[in-house]
This record gives sequence, structure tokens and C-alpha cells, in this order.
Amino acid sequence: MSGRKLYLEDLAVGDEFRSGEHTLDAEQIIAFAKQFDPQPFHIDEAAAKESYFQGLAASGWHTMAISMKLLVAAIPLAEGIIGAGGEVSWPRPTRPGDVLHVESRVMAIKPSRSKPDRGMVTIRTQTRNQKGEVLQDFTASVLVFARGASVP
Amino acid sequence: MSGRKLYLEDLAVGDEFRSGEHTLDAEQIIAFAKQFDPQPFHIDEAAAKESYFQGLAASGWHTMAISMKLLVAAIPLAEGIIGAGGEVSWPRPTRPGDVLHVESRVMAIKPSRSKPDRGMVTIRTQTRNQKGEVLQDFTASVLVFARGASVP
Repeated sequence: MSGRKLYLEDLAVGDEFRSGEHTLDAEQIIAFAKQFDPQPFHIDEAAAKESYFQGLAASGWHTMAISMKLLVAAIPLAEGIIGAGGEVSWPRPTRPGDVLHVESRVMAIKPSRSKPDRGMVTIRTQTRNQKGEVLQDFTASVLVFARGASVP
Repeated sequence: MSGRKLYLEDLAVGDEFRSGEHTLDAEQIIAFAKQFDPQPFHIDEAAAKESYFQGLAASGWHTMAISMKLLVAAIPLAEGIIGAGGEVSWPRPTRPGDVLHVESRVMAIKPSRSKPDRGMVTIRTQTRNQKGEVLQDFTASVLVFARGASVP
């Protein structure tokens, strides 16, 4: 947001980033789920009460998508956040009224052996609500370029 | 779809599911990314050409969200697809014009020790395009209930 751009050499293990907030409501939860995850516990409040979730819960991919939006604004990698993959868990459901933010930490940095102008950075991102409860725990491998890298 | 409902005892390691198709275009890619992953290579064709992706590419979470939509229709678990978490990778970008489908396979079934009416099922899902290229490889842990389980 500040115009600051981060390259591989700007990152260190232990670096932390905290995002802004996103307030979720039932309308958003239902709209996302109707398009991408149309299951009763994500789209119908009455049916959700009788489900495992005992009430409306956001699709895990909705929590992830909002987390990504917050991440993009929070970690200004110069060439963007290019994820190769990662591991996710959802310790508890995301609910209407939750105010989400993400907290990220650089866990590892591994320069490429074959291409010295880039490296893989392991970033762990927890998505929390206004009570500090962890709704999603996501560890990703992200491709990060050094200054002066050949992109593309 | 057919009204068939699958319970834990209906699943076996090696069971396979194949979904219908979803045709992706630039408009969908840009609309999703503007909302959830607003990076130049996902929202701007000209900027995308100069990026690592060398052309417009869908957000990985868009590929995931479409895959989830296809999965929900393809695997009729009686209590729904309740994911605890999983591991994802994107071997290649999803592009405008790609026609996606998912192919899933039951990799492991682990009955709960404490609650005999449920178990964790490991399901690997590959998202492929019309050329058979794997765009996403996702292995998830899914909570599956037995017949007569206490839900909620």
C-alpha cells in the first residue's frame, strides 16, 4: 500500500506481517457458497442448524479467499504472491459476524540452486477472528524474486 | 444429483469419482481475482504478459473454488463434504479457455477411535483441463459419518 516492494533479499526468517480486517456476514457467506460450495451448512441457516456445524458456516475456501485478499495487501512482494502450493487446516468454522485478519510469518527461505535470481519462501499464515481464535492455518511455498531478476 | 447418499461404510480405498465440467474464461478469472486475489497477473491481460505467468492466469483459489463446486456434485456424501484440511499444489497455471473437471480417489479411511459413528477419509483430487493436464493436486482430510450417526 505504501509503495514499498519486497524482494528475496529483503526477507528474513521470523519476519512478520499483519493485515487489515474483513468483516464477514451471512449474505457474503451464502453468495460465495452458492457459486462455489453449495452445501446446506453454507447456504441455508435452518439446514445449517441441523448439520455438523450447528449453524451457518463459511466455506473453508471462502475463508481462504478472504485471507488471500488480506495477504495481497499485507505482503508487498515485488513480483506478487506466487504460490506453488501449501497445507491448510481449519481448526474452527468461520461464522457470520466474524471480523477476519491474517498474521503471517516467514518460516524458511530457500534460494534456488539452478536460478540464483529467485527462491522459495515458506510463509505460515493464520487467519483469526476478532476474539483471536484461529480459523485457518495455512503454510505456503511462495516463489520470490531477487532484485534485477529475469521476470518473465 | 441421483439422490444417492454415501456413508462411511459405503467408501473403500481406491474408490474413484469423476466430475462434470466447468469452462473458464477471462471474465470469470478477472471477476474472482478482483474480489479475492487482485494481483496484476490475475486481473490485467497486458500486465500478465510481463509477469512470471506470461499471460492471464487464474488465482489458485479460483481453481480450488471451481474444483470444490465440481466435487460437491460428484461425491454425494450424506452429511456433506466437511474438510478438516489438506495439501494443495498447482503444477501449472489455469488459463482462460480451460475446461476443468476433477478426478478424485479415496486414498485412506481411518475410523475415529473415540466416536465409532464417523471417520476421517483421505481423498486426493486432481483438477485437469481438456488436455488432461493437471492444474491442481489436492489431498484432503474429510470427516465422513456412518449411517445412523449423531449429527450434530
